[in-house]
Amino acid sequence: MNVSGRAYRTIWPGDDGSSVEIIDQTKLPHAFATARLASLDEAAHAIRAMLVRGAPLIGATAAWGLWLALRADASDAGLARAHVTLLATRPTAVNLRWALDRVRAHLAPLERERRADSARQLAIEICDEDVALNHRLAAAGLPIIRELASRKKPGEPVNILTHCNAGWLAAVDVGLATAPIYAAHDAGIPVHVWVDETRPRNQGASLTAWELLNHGVPHTVVVDNAGGHLMQRGQVDLVIVGTDRTTAAGDVCNKIGTYLKALAARDNGVPFYAVVPSPSIDWTIRDGRREIPIEERSASEVTHISGRRDDGTVGLVALTPLGSPAANPAFDVTPARLVTGLITERGIAGASEGGLRRLFPEQR
Amino acid sequence: MNVSGRAYRTIWPGDDGSSVEIIDQTKLPHAFATARLASLDEAAHAIRAMLVRGAPLIGATAAWGLWLALRADASDAGLARAHVTLLATRPTAVNLRWALDRVRAHLAPLERERRADSARQLAIEICDEDVALNHRLAAAGLPIIRELASRKKPGEPVNILTHCNAGWLAAVDVGLATAPIYAAHDAGIPVHVWVDETRPRNQGASLTAWELLNHGVPHTVVVDNAGGHLMQRGQVDLVIVGTDRTTAAGDVCNKIGTYLKALAARDNGVPFYAVVPSPSIDWTIRDGRREIPIEERSASEVTHISGRRDDGTVGLVALTPLGSPAANPAFDVTPARLVTGLITERGIAGASEGGLRRLFPEQR
Repeated sequence: MNVSGRAYRTIWPGDDGSSVEIIDQTKLPHAFATARLASLDEAAHAIRAMLVRGAPLIGATAAWGLWLALRADASDAGLARAHVTLLATRPTAVNLRWALDRVRAHLAPLERERRADSARQLAIEICDEDVALNHRLAAAGLPIIRELASRKKPGEPVNILTHCNAGWLAAVDVGLATAPIYAAHDAGIPVHVWVDETRPRNQGASLTAWELLNHGVPHTVVVDNAGGHLMQRGQVDLVIVGTDRTTAAGDVCNKIGTYLKALAARDNGVPFYAVVPSPSIDWTIRDGRREIPIEERSASEVTHISGRRDDGTVGLVALTPLGSPAANPAFDVTPARLVTGLITERGIAGASEGGLRRLFPEQR
Repeated sequence: MNVSGRAYRTIWPGDDGSSVEIIDQTKLPHAFATARLASLDEAAHAIRAMLVRGAPLIGATAAWGLWLALRADASDAGLARAHVTLLATRPTAVNLRWALDRVRAHLAPLERERRADSARQLAIEICDEDVALNHRLAAAGLPIIRELASRKKPGEPVNILTHCNAGWLAAVDVGLATAPIYAAHDAGIPVHVWVDETRPRNQGASLTAWELLNHGVPHTVVVDNAGGHLMQRGQVDLVIVGTDRTTAAGDVCNKIGTYLKALAARDNGVPFYAVVPSPSIDWTIRDGRREIPIEERSASEVTHISGRRDDGTVGLVALTPLGSPAANPAFDVTPARLVTGLITERGIAGASEGGLRRLFPEQR
């Protein structure tokens, strides 16, 4: 997508043929900077320190990290060490293990001198596949926005609320929840996005707003408290969110606060969609509320916040009184009954076991 | 209530007999400081600059401000000027006009030399009446908590979620939404309060948390996004909020985000109560969503936040990218259908026209 008028991905091979470049997302939204990764250690650091984040992008970075590792040491031991090192950076990231296992399985049978080039080719493929997947999600979701636009007066935008950042910064390009939005915007359909700031980590206010700003999509940042009121007043036509994990029965686990927006959407007759690429469907579970453990993150994410000072530097400030404890559940589960539909790469599925299996009949 | 073990009100007559003292709430939660108001201008500044805030406390401060003004100039012109000056500090505050009109009506017929003493007496009365009102709200709400406690194992706390600050810092003492909570705690009933941080102004994280901490009430700060998840997991027994304005039909206008918590409470069978002192009932309107205009406040409250830096100083940081617009609706309306009951000084009313008029039959 565009940054200051120039097309970017979140990760791309360096011009020098021996490195990978990324957008350093820790600097966003206050500065745009790229970083060059030239070794296994630099790739591992980029994932661990969240210079890159978002499941698809973590997987892509890991694949590139294996290439960097094999350029230095293509032995079996080198491959094994690189796999272990990268896997340890974010142990719970599903795409990370998937990408690492895929690349390792492909490389292990190869002769040592062919491994690095092959890893590079596979990293390119993994990135391109992710972009293609996101384009299919965009195509599946676009008709929903087009249909809403057809009921508007000419020039009147479709108002879409989104939560957190399931945008191109979380992927390689295009994004997940943002995919249909960018597709609509690029097709000339007027859209306006309400961006939930998404406390505590503020991925909406910092990343989604920055994405939309740079790609030229009209948007307005609101606090997470505002969405219900906006829906009551008829100012939201559609809610689109991403997902970290969706059950076989259509329960959507996503960033904390998503459930509240789904309740408000239901109460006000606003359609609520989750963008669910099939790798994020967990076919082994049905009841998200009972079966998905919710990560409890550090209280410091609630008690402190990072921002840009007057002098342009970025730093933390404390929000709560010294001595008040805080809790920080990171995700919640939106029951399938509140979900209008799931936007998958094969089209829109009803949020139910039947709806999902109709599109994915190969899943037993 | 207690601050570091010593009982305080938010406003009290100074020892010197010629001033009023207040808690300077702009310093909270990062420092506890009191301020001395010795003139009309200082009282007006305290209201305007929000050293005091909350409808009841603003009214009380205005009454004391008239006393300070009349000590310097008890003429008709002096009284009129003080009334105008204080009224202009927060033009939309209902209690402000009510207190000013009440004191002026009482003083205008009096001889000039009796006015200051009489104003002082009336300011004391207004404060004591507010405290008595809040004690009645506490008594009305306490049985709800007691009943929930009776179903718990011994020592297990009643978990109460609250939004924003309808606490004693918003009143003279005891508070509104907090009144039943403090009453339960002081009666030895174990309670634990989930404190919504309440973006954008963070009155929960800064004021409610500070109140509870200083009075020794167990509590945990959470982001506004978390409440629905906590209710899904059975970790909330009761929601109690305040109100800025409640309609004759029981629609509750309160700080933005309240509606989302009411939806989650309904979806999870959690009782949802608003504490509604009768002065905040607007008997002239019924449909809150249509008839209550919602204040749109400065976008800077969303894009910037104040906090305590490492060096102990307090300052603002920016959260959003330069160029991203923000919107800031300050209140929302929770429809009566989502409200379990209204805790008034005459007892608990059903959230309906019938429920309210049964307790307030004198209202036509």
